[in-house]
Amino acid sequence: MARSSSFPCQLDTLMNDQPVQTLISAEDKYGGLVIDVESLPTNTSVFVDSLNHSLAQWRTQGKKAVWLKLTIENSYLVDPAIKAGFIYHHAEPTHVMLVTWLSKEQSTVPANASHQVGIGAFILNDKQEILAVQERSGVFQGAGIWKMPTGSVNQGEDIFSGAIREVKEETGVDTEFVDVIGFRQSHAAAFGKSDIFFLCVLRPVTSEITVQDSELTAVKWMPIAEFKDQTYLKQRKLLKKMLEVCLATTTESGYKGFKIEDVQAGTGRRPQYFFYNADDCKE
Amino acid sequence: MARSSSFPCQLDTLMNDQPVQTLISAEDKYGGLVIDVESLPTNTSVFVDSLNHSLAQWRTQGKKAVWLKLTIENSYLVDPAIKAGFIYHHAEPTHVMLVTWLSKEQSTVPANASHQVGIGAFILNDKQEILAVQERSGVFQGAGIWKMPTGSVNQGEDIFSGAIREVKEETGVDTEFVDVIGFRQSHAAAFGKSDIFFLCVLRPVTSEITVQDSELTAVKWMPIAEFKDQTYLKQRKLLKKMLEVCLATTTESGYKGFKIEDVQAGTGRRPQYFFYNADDCKE
Repeated sequence: MARSSSFPCQLDTLMNDQPVQTLISAEDKYGGLVIDVESLPTNTSVFVDSLNHSLAQWRTQGKKAVWLKLTIENSYLVDPAIKAGFIYHHAEPTHVMLVTWLSKEQSTVPANASHQVGIGAFILNDKQEILAVQERSGVFQGAGIWKMPTGSVNQGEDIFSGAIREVKEETGVDTEFVDVIGFRQSHAAAFGKSDIFFLCVLRPVTSEITVQDSELTAVKWMPIAEFKDQTYLKQRKLLKKMLEVCLATTTESGYKGFKIEDVQAGTGRRPQYFFYNADDCKE
Repeated sequence: MARSSSFPCQLDTLMNDQPVQTLISAEDKYGGLVIDVESLPTNTSVFVDSLNHSLAQWRTQGKKAVWLKLTIENSYLVDPAIKAGFIYHHAEPTHVMLVTWLSKEQSTVPANASHQVGIGAFILNDKQEILAVQERSGVFQGAGIWKMPTGSVNQGEDIFSGAIREVKEETGVDTEFVDVIGFRQSHAAAFGKSDIFFLCVLRPVTSEITVQDSELTAVKWMPIAEFKDQTYLKQRKLLKKMLEVCLATTTESGYKGFKIEDVQAGTGRRPQYFFYNADDCKE
């Protein structure tokens, strides 16, 4: 009979008091193993026996990390895996990734994603009016304060695309990317993660406003002098500095930020963007 | 008798066929609830009954998201929670965060951290030698290629601190932060996350080298002309561009990147850093 790691065969071998089978796995590039989830025993006690047997074997073979990705459908195997020595590594809506470190050396298991990324958009039209919003929630809620549109960059989304998308979604205004003119890093944001916020200059392509009611209470084109004169900007050092930098881009001398250049080599590959001070680095 | 949601009382009410108790929870700022994990029933079937009862009640009350943070010790409650309609949100080594969306409106549950953050360090001494390394693993493994030191910024770590730390760990050289002179965003990196890599200029404070054997095979101070002449830099558009930008900082005209300024208001608060083109934005 051909050996297989599928469930009925494993159950057979258990019932016949024969050796428990080793779980099917693939090696990764760092001396670790990734358990093949498709071939996992569906019976919990068979899974537990196979897992413990496999871990003991892999330990003697000098394997380092062992990865186990369990989907929502396999959530009944999370607790047995934890009891067998796994810890959580990261999770996404449809799965959780568990890992265990078998080596006596110090763990080199890489950390999960550490940062959220946000954008703020400085958008000035040719009447010297800034695109300004009032937010429905957050620290400025109900305070009558006008601010620049802000938003989050999604996983897999380019910063400049995220900025253009957020402005369009929140205000209805179409824009083009000009510059990243500064960024702020902060810590202990949502879920304890760190956060990088890119201050972007965008050029308006359309002017008509459509307010996104779920996030904003109002949007308008506001004279820049009036926007600048708001009291909260005198009290908040970061926001004051950010506005100064935005306004410096409109002066004769011309503050320079980072522009984008596609630096992906080869055709047919997804563009890869490098942001740098292009005006200052002419070849 | 004072009502309590602790386990013995809940078991009593179940056994007496009295109504199942609602789980203790706290409201968050966004119309959601966070279940109090300290007071969870330890008996799985009591937990399941209480959870289903609570969710039904919260749904009729118009609650939106419900959050459940289960530690490693409570991992036996993961599967029942998933069966009750929760999905994974994120996980860290010691816990997994589950969430369920009760509202008929579109979910506004925020995404988990989307980005990893890395640094590369351009370090030139006064003999026009660059601090160059050869890596033990990665795409350049065994290719005899000299590159700038690179590394990862940790959650909770400032970018400039991460750059200084990584250079010290890998090469033994002490440095000071000068500038971020560009950054590259890429996608589908480790665990499917996006990645931002900040190109930093650091000034060497010491010169003695100590090689970190686990990551590097060699470190040296290398004449910049020799470094620049390496074949791989002609083939890789991103790395070639990055080096050009680095070298532009050493020219008479002086390429300008983003410096750091602490923009946290108030005393006694942790500094918060804004990176911008300070030379270009004098008040």
